[in-house]
Amino acid sequence: MNRKAVYPGSFDPITYGHIDIIKRTSKLYDTVYVGVAHSTDKKVLFSVGERVAMARKAAKGLGNVIVEDFSGLVVDYVRRKKSCVIIRGLRMISDFEYEFQMALTNRKLADDVETIFMMPNESYSYLSSKLIKEAVGLGADVSDFVPDFVENVLKKKLKKK
Amino acid sequence: MNRKAVYPGSFDPITYGHIDIIKRTSKLYDTVYVGVAHSTDKKVLFSVGERVAMARKAAKGLGNVIVEDFSGLVVDYVRRKKSCVIIRGLRMISDFEYEFQMALTNRKLADDVETIFMMPNESYSYLSSKLIKEAVGLGADVSDFVPDFVENVLKKKLKKK
Amino acid sequence: MNRKAVYPGSFDPITYGHIDIIKRTSKLYDTVYVGVAHSTDKKVLFSVGERVAMARKAAKGLGNVIVEDFSGLVVDYVRRKKSCVIIRGLRMISDFEYEFQMALTNRKLADDVETIFMMPNESYSYLSSKLIKEAVGLGADVSDFVPDFVENVLKKKLKKK
Amino acid sequence: MNRKAVYPGSFDPITYGHIDIIKRTSKLYDTVYVGVAHSTDKKVLFSVGERVAMARKAAKGLGNVIVEDFSGLVVDYVRRKKSCVIIRGLRMISDFEYEFQMALTNRKLADDVETIFMMPNESYSYLSSKLIKEAVGLGADVSDFVPDFVENVLKKKLKKK
Amino acid sequence: MNRKAVYPGSFDPITYGHIDIIKRTSKLYDTVYVGVAHSTDKKVLFSVGERVAMARKAAKGLGNVIVEDFSGLVVDYVRRKKSCVIIRGLRMISDFEYEFQMALTNRKLADDVETIFMMPNESYSYLSSKLIKEAVGLGADVSDFVPDFVENVLKKKLKKK
Amino acid sequence: MNRKAVYPGSFDPITYGHIDIIKRTSKLYDTVYVGVAHSTDKKVLFSVGERVAMARKAAKGLGNVIVEDFSGLVVDYVRRKKSCVIIRGLRMISDFEYEFQMALTNRKLADDVETIFMMPNESYSYLSSKLIKEAVGLGADVSDFVPDFVENVLKKKLKKK
Repeated sequence: MNRKAVYPGSFDPITYGHIDIIKRTSKLYDTVYVGVAHSTDKKVLFSVGERVAMARKAAKGLGNVIVEDFSGLVVDYVRRKKSCVIIRGLRMISDFEYEFQMALTNRKLADDVETIFMMPNESYSYLSSKLIKEAVGLGADVSDFVPDFVENVLKKKLKKK
Repeated sequence: MNRKAVYPGSFDPITYGHIDIIKRTSKLYDTVYVGVAHSTDKKVLFSVGERVAMARKAAKGLGNVIVEDFSGLVVDYVRRKKSCVIIRGLRMISDFEYEFQMALTNRKLADDVETIFMMPNESYSYLSSKLIKEAVGLGADVSDFVPDFVENVLKKKLKKK
Repeated sequence: MNRKAVYPGSFDPITYGHIDIIKRTSKLYDTVYVGVAHSTDKKVLFSVGERVAMARKAAKGLGNVIVEDFSGLVVDYVRRKKSCVIIRGLRMISDFEYEFQMALTNRKLADDVETIFMMPNESYSYLSSKLIKEAVGLGADVSDFVPDFVENVLKKKLKKK
Repeated sequence: MNRKAVYPGSFDPITYGHIDIIKRTSKLYDTVYVGVAHSTDKKVLFSVGERVAMARKAAKGLGNVIVEDFSGLVVDYVRRKKSCVIIRGLRMISDFEYEFQMALTNRKLADDVETIFMMPNESYSYLSSKLIKEAVGLGADVSDFVPDFVENVLKKKLKKK
Repeated sequence: MNRKAVYPGSFDPITYGHIDIIKRTSKLYDTVYVGVAHSTDKKVLFSVGERVAMARKAAKGLGNVIVEDFSGLVVDYVRRKKSCVIIRGLRMISDFEYEFQMALTNRKLADDVETIFMMPNESYSYLSSKLIKEAVGLGADVSDFVPDFVENVLKKKLKKK
Repeated sequence: MNRKAVYPGSFDPITYGHIDIIKRTSKLYDTVYVGVAHSTDKKVLFSVGERVAMARKAAKGLGNVIVEDFSGLVVDYVRRKKSCVIIRGLRMISDFEYEFQMALTNRKLADDVETIFMMPNESYSYLSSKLIKEAVGLGADVSDFVPDFVENVLKKKLKKK
């Protein structure tokens, strides 16, 4: 019986929505690997090192959560970790479509790996890293959406650009 | 760390879609309780005893699966079983909406219980107990959708009516 | 090469949305069978005879359209007509889900029968027989939604009740 | 310039989601008519008198909100009130489809009346009178979803049945 | 009681769908500010000056509509205008998801500002500035989708490129 | 009565989902034109020549299928072929929204051309050229999603980059 779960993503940057899913997952599994994708199709604002650092800081205090970067296919990363469970948060309908495609594609690529969906707290159900970056770029206070240290890094990064 | 999961439903009757979810869940948890809801808002074709009997037959051979009926709130049933996990299959968008409402309502009723969503094999992603009953009522062969013993019971039941 | 199409439904009653689909279909096929379902799970307001009569009147002037009732499975009806095409109108998302389930179920029941979807004029994309019946019951003028003779029959029927 | 808005519904019973919309609307209009539909297609648990009484109690303290019952078409009720605005809350996708149909149908019936959609607080975005009634019927504490006085009435009503 | 509404967007270029919403809004509020976003994440075809000019021409004759550009957060623009209402048109499901996210994010950023959704005429419910630009680029006549002066500007702009 | 159908797309590259639709269409029409779009808004991985070559190889053996490139508006291409039918595959909800917009836009551009939707086998309902390219880029075996010769070309192309 496998007791490890993998929660993969780009986390660019980590939000309260992601953190909520990590906490929920950490109660259900012995070990949770938060996998920050190295190579990604999406354009990212932060380097993988910055994204790992922020996620690690956000997960501090959760003893059974390990944050690390990974490259290659998610299913290969899951197997390297001797896990068979991919965790994904489901926010809204548009998520569902994309997640459905990903999960079925991953199942074909590795039928011993199961994707499991969890819902974040409804207060975070509309959070999107993309919208948060736009809002900070326009001068918004996003302290309701991300931890303070993430907001600070976001502001610095978006000022530099 | 909790190793028991509850898969609740009306199972009126059990289909290959439900069975697929049961098998997937049985690989991820030590014990899986398939909870056949006693009292239900939906009009059911089969008595709870009949529904339990069919589900039990379908789950035969899965050593860690226990099929039983339950009444009252799902979250109370989950707690009685010393579990903290509700398993639900996600088929399509319309499912998602209803499941989203149920999961958030259940979370408010019991925040120590987590709802986890899994996807059935895509071959079963469109199966619906309701459509299957209609099809049998109109004379269809539904052996692709339910086990033979369920098809037989369905045919007898719908002839009697 | 099969040149016949079947457009099945309950047509309770026929609306401008249905009529729009019938006209579009009649341009694409040699013969179009409008199949009014005899036995139906849904509660209907009109008898199958009344529904056939209204649909027939609405399709008058379309020389290659035949309106008739049918019972049993749609796919069996399609085969009896020596057709291999089921026509369905797609209005909105909720339609799509149900239609998707029906089409895949029908495909499993008869893999030589193909379901084809067409979109009504956007002016009719929100029409629903159910809403129209409710509106007439509350005294509305529904002449934008159904032909006059249907509106008259609806008013009589809903007054009688 | 019209300063009156109408918020119609069945309110069977009123929930925190409805109350949230009423409060938001009362800030945007001089007068808000909460119209409790007399005749309704849906089966209701409470009489129109009971539903008005609960809604009135819930809206107490909002000086510009008038709760009353109405019968007939919503658009006719709106016109009798010398308003031209129908307010509707949008919770989720399934809502949207139905609301879209209703709004376009109402526009055809009365093109001088505009439907305006507002979103409840995300904490109430999943509330459904139907689910709440089911939950109370199964013994749940629903004090997060409805005011205390509504919960009490619900418990009495569902015990009697 | 606030009588001003703000209708923000990129309007790249303005379509009959936008114009329909502007007309509907102008009947419900004393003053309508059509805010053309200066800085925007989306790649735009027209400069903000060009977009304002086209929107202004389209709104000519509506005495209480003011077209202007704005930069920064929408909610800050709304406050500068002493308004508390953001108007958004809702076309289709995909819209709804995005609009839902935006509206809830804006509410967190400024809880005194309310987002209100309106539906365009169903004839415009499928219009998309993006599709129109593609169509013109491929040589289409888009006079059903945008005013003549917009079509002319579009053709010139897309030829130059 | 028109017996020719056009199936347009970017086919970048062709997948088993596209091939499934081509086969279904070839049974319903005398001639099927698979139109590979020359100019396209989407960034493509393969040249139009490469995309035509792969589609042609995939359609080999289907005597009534002609694969060719086209440029300009789809509706103009359909008319040049003396057809009046555009075939589109419908996979999922997100598809539906986009397809709905396209179909209604095309109908306005050419009301003698009808868009017809078909569903691929449910095994292919989640396939996306985009996801397949990403997966190959990360080293996945995609032989369940595309023919071998496409997989080989994909691997070569993505290595070169």
